[in-house]
Amino acid sequence: MELWYTEKQTDNFGITAKIKETLVTEKTEFQDLAIIDTEEFGRMLTLDGMVMTTVKDEFVYHEMVAHPALFTHPNPEHVLVVGGGDGGVIREVMKHPKVKKAVLVDIDGKVITYSKQFLPEIAGELDNPRVEVIVNDGYMHIHDHKNTYDVIMVDSTEPVGPAVELFTKGFYQGIYDALKEEGIFVAQTDNPWFKADLIRTVNRDVREIFPVVRNYIANIPTYPSGLWTFTMGSKKHDPLQVDETQIPELDTKYYSPRLHKAAFVLPKFVEDLVK
Amino acid sequence: MELWYTEKQTDNFGITAKIKETLVTEKTEFQDLAIIDTEEFGRMLTLDGMVMTTVKDEFVYHEMVAHPALFTHPNPEHVLVVGGGDGGVIREVMKHPKVKKAVLVDIDGKVITYSKQFLPEIAGELDNPRVEVIVNDGYMHIHDHKNTYDVIMVDSTEPVGPAVELFTKGFYQGIYDALKEEGIFVAQTDNPWFKADLIRTVNRDVREIFPVVRNYIANIPTYPSGLWTFTMGSKKHDPLQVDETQIPELDTKYYSPRLHKAAFVLPKFVEDLVK
Repeated sequence: MELWYTEKQTDNFGITAKIKETLVTEKTEFQDLAIIDTEEFGRMLTLDGMVMTTVKDEFVYHEMVAHPALFTHPNPEHVLVVGGGDGGVIREVMKHPKVKKAVLVDIDGKVITYSKQFLPEIAGELDNPRVEVIVNDGYMHIHDHKNTYDVIMVDSTEPVGPAVELFTKGFYQGIYDALKEEGIFVAQTDNPWFKADLIRTVNRDVREIFPVVRNYIANIPTYPSGLWTFTMGSKKHDPLQVDETQIPELDTKYYSPRLHKAAFVLPKFVEDLVK
Repeated sequence: MELWYTEKQTDNFGITAKIKETLVTEKTEFQDLAIIDTEEFGRMLTLDGMVMTTVKDEFVYHEMVAHPALFTHPNPEHVLVVGGGDGGVIREVMKHPKVKKAVLVDIDGKVITYSKQFLPEIAGELDNPRVEVIVNDGYMHIHDHKNTYDVIMVDSTEPVGPAVELFTKGFYQGIYDALKEEGIFVAQTDNPWFKADLIRTVNRDVREIFPVVRNYIANIPTYPSGLWTFTMGSKKHDPLQVDETQIPELDTKYYSPRLHKAAFVLPKFVEDLVK
């Protein structure tokens, strides 16, 4: 008997992946969590029936959340990751020697626990002494930490369930206030094929708060449409003004110094969404 | 009752799309052809069970086959499209006023006939007086037309069925000989997530024939992995030396003058495939 995981990415379209083994299924306090071992993408974490990460393609998302902002800020010493309990973004942040401390705040401790157990290649750096892991509401955390962080990364689920408040203007204002004077934030902002309205709304809101707003993209095969957008809001520094020749070649598989600016060049229909 | 089209893009992974209506299913002389009306992507052409094009996302592929090469060649008067019977690439080629004549050679006349009937928004320019449509083997055509074309575009299926010969070194040599002295060719070369070996092989072969070889990418949601590669071989002109400020803003939805060079900046794991 063959078992397949099928995710409806929209009402009318989805992906399907052959399963070797289901490792975890649990209704946590906040969401339905599953870890499935798939033939094509290896172990896969899903929340509320949506792929969060897979061992085969996780590097794209995690590198592209972390490095564009960290190589735009001249001295990113204090970093906050909101969400991201699987630890993938933290792993990338730890590749930056300038980072003195990274704080991870995920609302769902079960994501952290199961990721450490079943996705050690992703979650391994959560035990790095430069990392502090907090199980709490990210929205509350930023409102309790004014003028604290150099870079804030929002690694949320889609705006359903516990992540709804992470797509509000109040949250972006809170992030602005939690950032120091040269601060930068970045958020995953879904895909332009099925969620054009979301991207438009987020951009409008972020532009009302941050003087510099830029959008970039990456290809993630297991995410809806395969094309993912990220929105960066910055108080001062512009990622497009970075001298790429000064970016070191990290141990990455997607991001590179050459890609730093190119990732911000959007297909025309995406440009039109964020004008 | 709900009907869904499911394509196994690999043995272990696929996409699935809700169907409104099946318009055509036919075993032609060369392949299994179907045109399906889907809820999410509109009408969809499949050959041998693989999505060739859909009304919703076809613009990406067709623009990205046509424009990078046409804006690299200084005077692309004579253009050949091998395959591409749906007419999408021809539609984009017709946006270039310098093109005096475009020849389409598809081995399967049924693709042309059904595309004109059911996909008029894609196939409409096949009746343009600057276009000559030939039903024939593209491999034979190029070998019978030495020193004839300024730009040759290979819009083939994946290397199964009738397209196998379009991924051979002999074919690339034939293309070289069919091009004039400043000639450029471009081919779709599948995706780097599931077909890394193919991309490596094509690049090795093309590099042995053409002095300038460049690779670029685009996001196509209904193609495997959502990330598609294109390989360009050029006798003289380098797409990365083009002055982007001189590229006019065409009526496109994906390609833009700004994207012309950025599309050639590859994710690191793709760079590594074509080194």
